[in-house]
Amino acid sequence: MGVESLPRTIELAYKDGSALVRLVDQTALPRTLRYITVATAASMVEAIVSLTVRGAPAIGIAGASALALFACNECTAGSAAGLVDELRAIAPRIASARPTAISLPASVERMIGIAEAALLKAASLEGMKRILVDEVKRMEASDERVNRAIGAYGAALLGQGSRILTHCNAGSLATAFYGTALGIVYSANDLGRIDRVYVDETRPVGQGARLTAWELGQAGVPATLICDSMAAYVMATKGIDAVIVGADRICSNGDTVNKVGTYGLALIAKHHGIPFYVAAPASTIDWSLDVGSQVPIEERDAAEVSACIPAGVDVFNPAFDMTPARLIDAIVTEHGAFKPGELNLLHLKETRGTEGDRS
Amino acid sequence: MGVESLPRTIELAYKDGSALVRLVDQTALPRTLRYITVATAASMVEAIVSLTVRGAPAIGIAGASALALFACNECTAGSAAGLVDELRAIAPRIASARPTAISLPASVERMIGIAEAALLKAASLEGMKRILVDEVKRMEASDERVNRAIGAYGAALLGQGSRILTHCNAGSLATAFYGTALGIVYSANDLGRIDRVYVDETRPVGQGARLTAWELGQAGVPATLICDSMAAYVMATKGIDAVIVGADRICSNGDTVNKVGTYGLALIAKHHGIPFYVAAPASTIDWSLDVGSQVPIEERDAAEVSACIPAGVDVFNPAFDMTPARLIDAIVTEHGAFKPGELNLLHLKETRGTEGDRS
Repeated sequence: MGVESLPRTIELAYKDGSALVRLVDQTALPRTLRYITVATAASMVEAIVSLTVRGAPAIGIAGASALALFACNECTAGSAAGLVDELRAIAPRIASARPTAISLPASVERMIGIAEAALLKAASLEGMKRILVDEVKRMEASDERVNRAIGAYGAALLGQGSRILTHCNAGSLATAFYGTALGIVYSANDLGRIDRVYVDETRPVGQGARLTAWELGQAGVPATLICDSMAAYVMATKGIDAVIVGADRICSNGDTVNKVGTYGLALIAKHHGIPFYVAAPASTIDWSLDVGSQVPIEERDAAEVSACIPAGVDVFNPAFDMTPARLIDAIVTEHGAFKPGELNLLHLKETRGTEGDRS
Repeated sequence: MGVESLPRTIELAYKDGSALVRLVDQTALPRTLRYITVATAASMVEAIVSLTVRGAPAIGIAGASALALFACNECTAGSAAGLVDELRAIAPRIASARPTAISLPASVERMIGIAEAALLKAASLEGMKRILVDEVKRMEASDERVNRAIGAYGAALLGQGSRILTHCNAGSLATAFYGTALGIVYSANDLGRIDRVYVDETRPVGQGARLTAWELGQAGVPATLICDSMAAYVMATKGIDAVIVGADRICSNGDTVNKVGTYGLALIAKHHGIPFYVAAPASTIDWSLDVGSQVPIEERDAAEVSACIPAGVDVFNPAFDMTPARLIDAIVTEHGAFKPGELNLLHLKETRGTEGDRS
């Protein structure tokens, strides 16, 4: 019981030159907390595609882990330079396993950059493997630290007895540990400020019903599961104090791409005067994109929506949608909570490489 | 193929003093078009509670049919007066099988009133049974006629190439035949005006995915199934020309109670400047209620939402919500399309007992 008892979502272990990654199998929850062990880059890609591991921060780490697994377990090159060539060759397939979250291509690119930098410093083949493994372990630890900071900054926005509505799973299961949107809930709950969390089931995959409800239950946070279509009625009648969601990619103007349904929630929250918060690491911001319409929106298989599609009927299954910045009250990062129009302050801080607070 | 090939949703047959009602089993669709035969009032109540028959107009007829079934098949009284006493005794249980739609208590009350009037005219026991059966048959025929009128008035609001978004099933399956919201779609489609209908799956029971998608497919209307949470993205990106829904109860100010999710759709449509139309027979208007907050909202079993609720988690499962009149562009009835603020014109017409058109 309690948030600290939640499982590590993704964890790489290295021993005697080989590496394994243990994943919570998110397709088995909430019935069973089961782990799977992944040893190859291709298996990790498959785990990402099948949503065995999902959530923007978690799939960022998964993508980096895929490269580390390849280096340790699959590389046939006899030299560090050969390894880097092989990593470059497989990187595009890993980076494109899912198109919307920026974390996946960003972490793959980071790993390649680290390998190239090590090569310039004449790293050995074995040294190169350790450097990649160490980077994954650093990302795992950093992700938890970042999420706890997001939690603290976000909790400061909530008062006593807060009723929160959330969508999808931006929880511990979407990250290495602790969560982003739910990181705020856990931090606020530790301060005694959470009355209840309303959880959208989040069709078609059910990340809310299966994952968020499960982890809030495990963590001892009072939670009520609703269907996505009930959110407006809940906002109108249940005294919701804030809607808090995660993000897959945030543009430099604050436009936010997240699980499909987020945009409608933001419109409904705005109508009711309920603050709408996005919780995400600063690395979720894609400074190269000006507006949300530039983000590729993944469309997934019709079978996710229904196993029985009536004859003559099509299915449209976008996995994400775009919430315009004007509907967002704050983007809560590890550096503080920013209004969308103030993200440039965060950019300045990031490009200067300084560390600091903002609330 | 074509709307005229759709099944009759509910149909009473009378022969030699006994009556049977044939229902489309709406729990079996879309996999199987199967009928069940109901012979008793208690079985009809069970069919209403279990959603074997659902949709406000259809359950109105079902409630009236329950009384006719009782009169023909179950009555133990030896006189017309005795029958009326027995009908009065079972009426409350039928009228309250579901609490939200006005059609159910209204049609039960109507049947009791007709029986009482017949008693005053010294009807015989056998005559009384025939009067009740005839009233059900009249309701079945009237419902189809009303729906075709709604369809014609609603189609006049739509231009060529219209893209419609609908929620739940306000189709032929929700009525004796033809449908209300989908009646408009069928009428407009006959005029070549429908490009495509986007169908919300309508969790938790899936009336959109199972019933609306099925009947649009059968009727040859181009249809695309989406999850409820995708409606905002569809409205933002797919050029939707109108949202059209049914209603379970409309208050005298135009506030409309309909399947949960309707309210959120209306807010999202308003934001996008998309007309929001409610299609319903004038009998859906509860002139005794001033505002929507007076309508009882049915809450249904948690098991509808999920077969696997994580430990420590509650479920909230309201079946309906209330859409304020200001979000509704027109209420389309068999007497024409009315702005919510003009419903009093319809009331005047109804209380004067005149028939007439309005567009």
